[in-house]
Amino acid sequence: MSEMQSARRGRPGYDQQGILAVAVAAFNEYGYDATSIGMLAERLGLSKSAIYHHFGSKDEILDRALDSALSSLEAVVEEPEGGAEGSVSASAADRLEHVLRGAVHVLVDQLPAVTLLLRVRGNTDVERAALSRRRTFDRRITALVSAAQDEGALRDDIDASVASRLTFGMINSIVEWYRPGGREGADRLADDVVAIALDGLRKR
Amino acid sequence: MSEMQSARRGRPGYDQQGILAVAVAAFNEYGYDATSIGMLAERLGLSKSAIYHHFGSKDEILDRALDSALSSLEAVVEEPEGGAEGSVSASAADRLEHVLRGAVHVLVDQLPAVTLLLRVRGNTDVERAALSRRRTFDRRITALVSAAQDEGALRDDIDASVASRLTFGMINSIVEWYRPGGREGADRLADDVVAIALDGLRKR
Repeated sequence: MSEMQSARRGRPGYDQQGILAVAVAAFNEYGYDATSIGMLAERLGLSKSAIYHHFGSKDEILDRALDSALSSLEAVVEEPEGGAEGSVSASAADRLEHVLRGAVHVLVDQLPAVTLLLRVRGNTDVERAALSRRRTFDRRITALVSAAQDEGALRDDIDASVASRLTFGMINSIVEWYRPGGREGADRLADDVVAIALDGLRKR
Repeated sequence: MSEMQSARRGRPGYDQQGILAVAVAAFNEYGYDATSIGMLAERLGLSKSAIYHHFGSKDEILDRALDSALSSLEAVVEEPEGGAEGSVSASAADRLEHVLRGAVHVLVDQLPAVTLLLRVRGNTDVERAALSRRRTFDRRITALVSAAQDEGALRDDIDASVASRLTFGMINSIVEWYRPGGREGADRLADDVVAIALDGLRKR
């Protein structure tokens, strides 16, 4: 059996991704601790062993969901436009703008997984590993803000770490209220975030 | 016995406010549902009945904590400088700046209670009432942004509701990382928030 067939085994309609999506929704609704594999099986209309065929444990489901959100965010800073090492052509300010836009798109595209990521408090090894990756991401953003300050493109009267925390606080808050199909699409929302973060609400 | 003496009854060192502070810390650490009156009694070194002397139920403790955070936030918009009806002297933009600063101070001063408020999901009547007050607060902020746009002080290419959500998203994110006694005091942090929200990070 090919790997793809194997991934699709189980009740028709639920492959690994489908199980993952239902699990993430349940974790967000009830909390990770309060969600059991039995509850997931009931929601999915599958047996528990059908779930264990795809995932070794509840922890592994969480790990996969958090990895999905983190990998997408990391990809944004690793793109050449986002500030990966060696991309010396773009200014730090342009790379920061690219990263802010990209992060808004990741949030909108992966709203449930990012919501889960933002609620992680570090109670388990999987959660602590995710928090550690978040901190590394945060440090890269702070370094980018700092580089843009050094270039003279960004004001330097605000600490780079505080500026990046506040800016990502604004971006992360999108998970609290954004609903797919709402008035603003991801492109428009990314424009708004960049407009406020870089130029502010005041008319000039 | 006077009311003040009554409020201070119980084990020396814990009046109502003291019990409330310990309860809020426990709710934030373990979650409201997972925290029992028995756990609080153990943390406080009090009997359960000593807690019930001050609060009728766990729900009442939550209600008091959320009310404390909400009342402080509401007071900021109700101050004459914050936009209460009849205060026609200040511009909407100035009132908005006053409200942003005031909200940062409330967050820093009441970090645990605001943290609790921001995690409320609406599972009980007390939580739903708190969410309803938050929505009323949000509408007042949106109205203030809208008035400042109408004055011509703020750019009108960003929807007032999106602008106020993103700005308060930035402010609310402070509970995620701010620690009392850190490098930045509330005044400095309020300056930073106002600087980014109104004028942006870009140097001019």
